[in-house]
Amino acid sequence: MTALTDIGQLATCPPDDPGAGLVDRAALVWDEGVVVWAGPEADLPARFADAERLSAHGGLVVPGLVDCHTHLVHAGDRSGEFVERIEGTPYLEIAGRGGGILSTVRATRAASDADLEASGRERLDAMLRQGVTTVEAKSGYGLTVADEMRTLRVHRRLADAGPQRIVSTLLAAHAVPPEYADDRAGYVRLVVDEMIPKAAADGLAAFVDVFVEQGAFTGSEARTIFAAAAAHGLGAKLHADQLSDTGGAALSASVGAASADHLEYVSDAGGAALAAAGVVAVSLPIATLVLGQEPLPARRLLDAGVRVAVATDFNPGSAPSASLPLAMWLACTRQRMTPAEALRGATVEAARALRLDGVGTLVPGGVADVAVFEAPSLYAWLAGWRAEPAARAVAAGETVWMRDEG
Amino acid sequence: MTALTDIGQLATCPPDDPGAGLVDRAALVWDEGVVVWAGPEADLPARFADAERLSAHGGLVVPGLVDCHTHLVHAGDRSGEFVERIEGTPYLEIAGRGGGILSTVRATRAASDADLEASGRERLDAMLRQGVTTVEAKSGYGLTVADEMRTLRVHRRLADAGPQRIVSTLLAAHAVPPEYADDRAGYVRLVVDEMIPKAAADGLAAFVDVFVEQGAFTGSEARTIFAAAAAHGLGAKLHADQLSDTGGAALSASVGAASADHLEYVSDAGGAALAAAGVVAVSLPIATLVLGQEPLPARRLLDAGVRVAVATDFNPGSAPSASLPLAMWLACTRQRMTPAEALRGATVEAARALRLDGVGTLVPGGVADVAVFEAPSLYAWLAGWRAEPAARAVAAGETVWMRDEG
Ligand SMILES: [Zn+2]
Ligand SMILES: [Zn+2]
Repeated sequence: MTALTDIGQLATCPPDDPGAGLVDRAALVWDEGVVVWAGPEADLPARFADAERLSAHGGLVVPGLVDCHTHLVHAGDRSGEFVERIEGTPYLEIAGRGGGILSTVRATRAASDADLEASGRERLDAMLRQGVTTVEAKSGYGLTVADEMRTLRVHRRLADAGPQRIVSTLLAAHAVPPEYADDRAGYVRLVVDEMIPKAAADGLAAFVDVFVEQGAFTGSEARTIFAAAAAHGLGAKLHADQLSDTGGAALSASVGAASADHLEYVSDAGGAALAAAGVVAVSLPIATLVLGQEPLPARRLLDAGVRVAVATDFNPGSAPSASLPLAMWLACTRQRMTPAEALRGATVEAARALRLDGVGTLVPGGVADVAVFEAPSLYAWLAGWRAEPAARAVAAGETVWMRDEG
Repeated sequence: MTALTDIGQLATCPPDDPGAGLVDRAALVWDEGVVVWAGPEADLPARFADAERLSAHGGLVVPGLVDCHTHLVHAGDRSGEFVERIEGTPYLEIAGRGGGILSTVRATRAASDADLEASGRERLDAMLRQGVTTVEAKSGYGLTVADEMRTLRVHRRLADAGPQRIVSTLLAAHAVPPEYADDRAGYVRLVVDEMIPKAAADGLAAFVDVFVEQGAFTGSEARTIFAAAAAHGLGAKLHADQLSDTGGAALSASVGAASADHLEYVSDAGGAALAAAGVVAVSLPIATLVLGQEPLPARRLLDAGVRVAVATDFNPGSAPSASLPLAMWLACTRQRMTPAEALRGATVEAARALRLDGVGTLVPGGVADVAVFEAPSLYAWLAGWRAEPAARAVAAGETVWMRDEG
């Protein structure tokens, strides 16, 4: 049994009440990996007197963050596109000369299993330093049966190695691969007849995701794919209404998806459908900003009763940053989500988008995944934003700061 | 003599050429605090063989960052306003019930010298961890002769303690204090007749700044103040065109200001005036985002030949984050500045806004202020942006990451 005390502010993020469940000067007790008590430290019951003690040193304690939308495993470097986009080069031009998703597909197919696992591990370590203890990971840069299954197996090895919980998603319907450029239906059949059954049989994925967009997959192709997913016991997720209103939100609702992600162009009717069906809307503000888009209308969705999660969309093109706290800050400043809503969005609502009961909340019974930040309160943490430290700073020739001496 | 080697990418930021002056696999040599050589490591001359060696471990090396616009020294906590603004409370309503700048004025006047210095020191330390080795600091929360001079003296003590270079600015014309609400002219006279002469005589400030805006100071009041500044040998800076186009840019040009800051509403004519007069435009994208504004038209200014710096505007209200790398990332993603432009804006152009020759550049002759970041290149650093690490992460009850063990 462990008691974390000297907590400046605790956010329990209760699953069913709105708000962050803030408790000042709090304590948190867990046993065998499950929260058994949370409340003001002054009320800590005597029966926990023998628990091992950890100190939060007056800091902020929140549920371990949940990044519910990432393209974790991939090879290749597209950081040059970051500059090209700033310079105004249209995505279609970048893609036309071999950039974009398909450049990552080429690099990923060419990479060894060991390289994919090693870079995935490095990224998970970086995420862990940001307080992220649960990560959803999508395939989608393989686009052959062998390469998609290989990515899913990398997810499994990363999950087995821990410490993070990995939720694996088959996103074979990310793009039509060049080999099937003239046979879209053939590729959809491959996804339905081979990839989904194989992923399900080997227990390699919990969800199937489809990128529904002009130039990607149609609503009708998505329905076919989700029907196969359901038949094999896999949940549904969508990249929906990102570049135009394609009715992706309504489609998500009609197939009972766990989440609809992106939604920059969601209509009011789409929002109402998400609310009625209990589909979580996943906001991806880093990608929105990098692509120069108007943000997802988070306030409109929240006011319509939709649960809104916040994730990084970490990927080598539109969201090269794997910083969930950055996404939360952007959700506050660009999408007018309150700090409580942004925190719920990156914890308990994100867990809901992954159908993980008991994760992302520190009420008793919740899994004891915890992140401690050096700030006295949730407001102070989000408002007082800082980047990762420099490795070294030199002033007039003298080293005046080194991270590793910290 | 010191040689920094194993640099993955070096950015020298030459003062007069555009671009970041990128050199791959580079080395950098300095002696007595001044750069004596920079170039590919393979070309490192034999005469430096005896220099002390430091390794950049394959990382990115840039000039020590220069934050040319901060309200460093102040007391009080306004993090609640961060939430109120998200919730849509107008600034005037916040100010009306005692929030806003004047709440910081009350708290700052009430604070002890020691408290102001200690919190200033903590903030400088946090900035140093971000690689910031030069910081401009403005008064403006005292608004009496005694309290403004006291703030400037805190700047001097912080500068004397080092390691950062502090540039001190008198911003007595930040707001009309409540005592002068019915006598604006009287307050301007106080600034002109007492504050500026005192600050100059005691060598406490290099610049005088005026907040030119409806509700703050008029262009004509600003001219009076800048005339006094010039008569006492102090440079001029302006908070200009932030909430409306008040002709602040043209005013900056006509008084020969070192910089015009904010400029969200600058007109084309204003931009042309800045370019012709060589006034640096200082972009403050954190405040712009927090206030829900459209960003400064950086591309338009750059294309018109204006030099554009990037700073945090660190202050307890509209920019509670003291992270210059965050401002640079926003300059790229929201203002379409290239990584090279954003880096120049936070180094050599920021130094120009402070009239610091030889600072913010690593060409030979430049001051050896250096920041090392753990990234292979400038693009990778800015694209792969991450927040400050969590202090601790716990997964299912077990501690899996602790910063201090790093
Ligand atoms: Zn995605
Ligand atoms: Zn300012």
